[in-house]
Amino acid sequence: MEHTTVIVKKKVKMSNPVLIEGLPGIGLVGKIAAEYLIKEKKAERIAILYSPHFPHQVVMQKNGVVRMLKMKFYHAKAGGRDMLILVGDVQAATSEAQYEVTGKILDYFQSQKGRQIITLGGYGTGKAPPQPKVFGAATHKKIIPRYSKGGVAFGQTRGGIIGAAGLLLGLGRVRGMHGICLMGETHGGYVDPKSAQAVLLALGKILGIKIDVAALAQKADAGEKFIRKMEAEAKKQGELAIEGGAQPAPRDLSYIR
Amino acid sequence: MEHTTVIVKKKVKMSNPVLIEGLPGIGLVGKIAAEYLIKEKKAERIAILYSPHFPHQVVMQKNGVVRMLKMKFYHAKAGGRDMLILVGDVQAATSEAQYEVTGKILDYFQSQKGRQIITLGGYGTGKAPPQPKVFGAATHKKIIPRYSKGGVAFGQTRGGIIGAAGLLLGLGRVRGMHGICLMGETHGGYVDPKSAQAVLLALGKILGIKIDVAALAQKADAGEKFIRKMEAEAKKQGELAIEGGAQPAPRDLSYIR
Amino acid sequence: MEHTTVIVKKKVKMSNPVLIEGLPGIGLVGKIAAEYLIKEKKAERIAILYSPHFPHQVVMQKNGVVRMLKMKFYHAKAGGRDMLILVGDVQAATSEAQYEVTGKILDYFQSQKGRQIITLGGYGTGKAPPQPKVFGAATHKKIIPRYSKGGVAFGQTRGGIIGAAGLLLGLGRVRGMHGICLMGETHGGYVDPKSAQAVLLALGKILGIKIDVAALAQKADAGEKFIRKMEAEAKKQGELAIEGGAQPAPRDLSYIR
Amino acid sequence: MEHTTVIVKKKVKMSNPVLIEGLPGIGLVGKIAAEYLIKEKKAERIAILYSPHFPHQVVMQKNGVVRMLKMKFYHAKAGGRDMLILVGDVQAATSEAQYEVTGKILDYFQSQKGRQIITLGGYGTGKAPPQPKVFGAATHKKIIPRYSKGGVAFGQTRGGIIGAAGLLLGLGRVRGMHGICLMGETHGGYVDPKSAQAVLLALGKILGIKIDVAALAQKADAGEKFIRKMEAEAKKQGELAIEGGAQPAPRDLSYIR
Repeated sequence: MEHTTVIVKKKVKMSNPVLIEGLPGIGLVGKIAAEYLIKEKKAERIAILYSPHFPHQVVMQKNGVVRMLKMKFYHAKAGGRDMLILVGDVQAATSEAQYEVTGKILDYFQSQKGRQIITLGGYGTGKAPPQPKVFGAATHKKIIPRYSKGGVAFGQTRGGIIGAAGLLLGLGRVRGMHGICLMGETHGGYVDPKSAQAVLLALGKILGIKIDVAALAQKADAGEKFIRKMEAEAKKQGELAIEGGAQPAPRDLSYIR
Repeated sequence: MEHTTVIVKKKVKMSNPVLIEGLPGIGLVGKIAAEYLIKEKKAERIAILYSPHFPHQVVMQKNGVVRMLKMKFYHAKAGGRDMLILVGDVQAATSEAQYEVTGKILDYFQSQKGRQIITLGGYGTGKAPPQPKVFGAATHKKIIPRYSKGGVAFGQTRGGIIGAAGLLLGLGRVRGMHGICLMGETHGGYVDPKSAQAVLLALGKILGIKIDVAALAQKADAGEKFIRKMEAEAKKQGELAIEGGAQPAPRDLSYIR
Repeated sequence: MEHTTVIVKKKVKMSNPVLIEGLPGIGLVGKIAAEYLIKEKKAERIAILYSPHFPHQVVMQKNGVVRMLKMKFYHAKAGGRDMLILVGDVQAATSEAQYEVTGKILDYFQSQKGRQIITLGGYGTGKAPPQPKVFGAATHKKIIPRYSKGGVAFGQTRGGIIGAAGLLLGLGRVRGMHGICLMGETHGGYVDPKSAQAVLLALGKILGIKIDVAALAQKADAGEKFIRKMEAEAKKQGELAIEGGAQPAPRDLSYIR
Repeated sequence: MEHTTVIVKKKVKMSNPVLIEGLPGIGLVGKIAAEYLIKEKKAERIAILYSPHFPHQVVMQKNGVVRMLKMKFYHAKAGGRDMLILVGDVQAATSEAQYEVTGKILDYFQSQKGRQIITLGGYGTGKAPPQPKVFGAATHKKIIPRYSKGGVAFGQTRGGIIGAAGLLLGLGRVRGMHGICLMGETHGGYVDPKSAQAVLLALGKILGIKIDVAALAQKADAGEKFIRKMEAEAKKQGELAIEGGAQPAPRDLSYIR
């Protein structure tokens, strides 16, 4: 247990599964999207990942019980496809730890004969977009056309994709896998359910499955008003505080857990 | 010797032992409680843990002899139960080191067929409580009732339990163990023997053993006057300096070593 | 893939190859020189090095495809000699990582029966030299004469050679290899193609090969005007910002990639 | 070569050798003493220790040749005893690295059947002592009497002995070895050859060998005047800059290299 370990809770026979990753990151876009997808598709938790590279603490819960920090794999079937959805409390903090954890995730995915990876995240622009675009970045040039559905824009983003959303693609490619990172346009300075909604809609089109985003849209609308207000205040005061990438979701998002 | 190592000094045959941990932490509550218990029950040192993750230095003692920084396991029998009491100079500094050291502690405990763990610590509130409460956090929901004796309150604490007091429960659970963390309410900004006293009284009720806290109570009373004075001064000056969690006990606590 | 790994893309039979290293460093002198050499000699990429000690991110490229951060080995033949040219995006950040990566580079070079190493870099003086000198530092005293051609000055530099340019020589020597570090005199506060040009001319003389630096010279001339201007401004404003050693080349150098 | 490694340059048959350590530390007292002893006894270099935990650079020397940072073992015979003297450029920076390097030193010493260790260092008091005392700290109480010769005072120092001077004793003891740390009283804020002289005189008495400290005394006298002057100035200006413990000796000490 003192190494990064995947503990399989339930063995599921999958056929050509797609890995969908949504760990904490910019605007919590990927995390919100993946956790919503788990709820919407009634996905089942089938495996857990622990790592000594996660913070050395346990979380106290309302029911008086402690729990380890972890990542979780959920399984769902949609549109005839097996989906393996990865969510979690944290990302590892150092380069070496990120490579190790990503490697363990890919080992498990490989043991399920998986080859396609879609990672979800936010692309921070410093501005609150009225209608968030969805950007894509792929492992191979030739696969871009089949992902360009639903308005996903390739080649319009610059810089690095930091953490698991990037490394799963980079290390996955070395193992013969392929896929993309779907990035929702977002401010970067606050939690953004609206951007997560845009990402989910694009994901649904890509996978050819229906994802009912009604509940998330409702929350996003409520959130947007709050965000506009925050932004207006921030303009007065100078600069928005940037929320760190690898943090557990704040309390007000607990509804989607 | 350059890995984390448990050196067994005396082999003791135990039956269903309980592990009681009290390493340095908030208000030194756990450390004071565990060290007092060792004295009160005349527990015997049976094993030592060294780690390259402890600071790279030896301590000079009054008698002209140096000693390594270490953790120590003591054994005592009380109320028919074997107790394995863990105390030490320091806690490891990084996540990876904490996981490694905790793993070695559990390995040794497992080799003694132990399954029940009670970790002791402080729960910092920023206020000096007149009568410190004792909080609990458990590995499993179903075991809470049997620990609720003696006024231990579950579900009233939030946040993380950092270090060995948390990880022993988290990693222990993964190995099929169970138990709780007993936290004494404390300010967090000073050493708190009174909170340790409250924790020991609760521990005695839980284990069904008598722990004579007279000597500690005396010290705590003396300490409390000092603490009230300190606090009054601190209010004038602004903020109390926070004593780091993983530090050896300051000199004035040496009576309980 | 979660260890530092060299992936051989094409097996080439080499005879007594010389390793020429030009990773990011002071003034990007080594990187510019090595990348120019690759272009000028139409060298072919034959191996890639990945490491978990590189930053945990992938780079988004203009074509919509992500790529891992990596080092690359190129092969060219010139003047009858096999050259193995090492370039890359980054250098590892910690001592341990630098030793590991350097060790892997040497393993690969050793598998090609290589024994001679020439590392390229800048020697920062804080002043913009009108005609940059080229300094040398060798693994063995007895080999200095054969490298002193073309005005390479030995024994005029002090301090440490940090990173792969130094460790390849230090660890290489322990493996029975030999060679030098060729350092172009440079300011240290900006990217310096002119210093890279001086290094390449010295390298050509040492290896007895012709390196046509015309394209680089042109760029360097253009660059120099810019640099003189920058420097004049910096004198007014106080101090030049120092560009970190282990960074990918800035955009305006992309012509030599 | 990418692990901490001892490379034996010359095999010497030793009988019950004593390990004498003098690596960089407070006031460079231990380093000066050990390097002077090497010169005075014409000790021969027989082994080298490299470590990836040392800084990732090579040092450029006046003769145009680079060298790795390293520790060095010297052998000399004096008073019928084999002495293994350990000196070096640096100490490892982290706890884990210090434990690893110390372990490798002990492995090598153990392979020579050594059991007695004397580490040399400074004990910083913040004051410049007119006649530096020599303090001792031992691995075992019972061995103190045999080391108390020549005015070595035990039990008068407090705190930790940081780095190899401490860990060699602590980890050595676990391996069944014994010995002491000899600490020269020193200011701590400057290089102190006079304190090194006091340590050497005590070492000579303990080992029953004559160490001619004339050359060192001369330097110390010269140094003392300089130091008194520095101190007087420092008193005016407030506080002396503290020289870091694990640094190579400054240039003006090069005479003892």
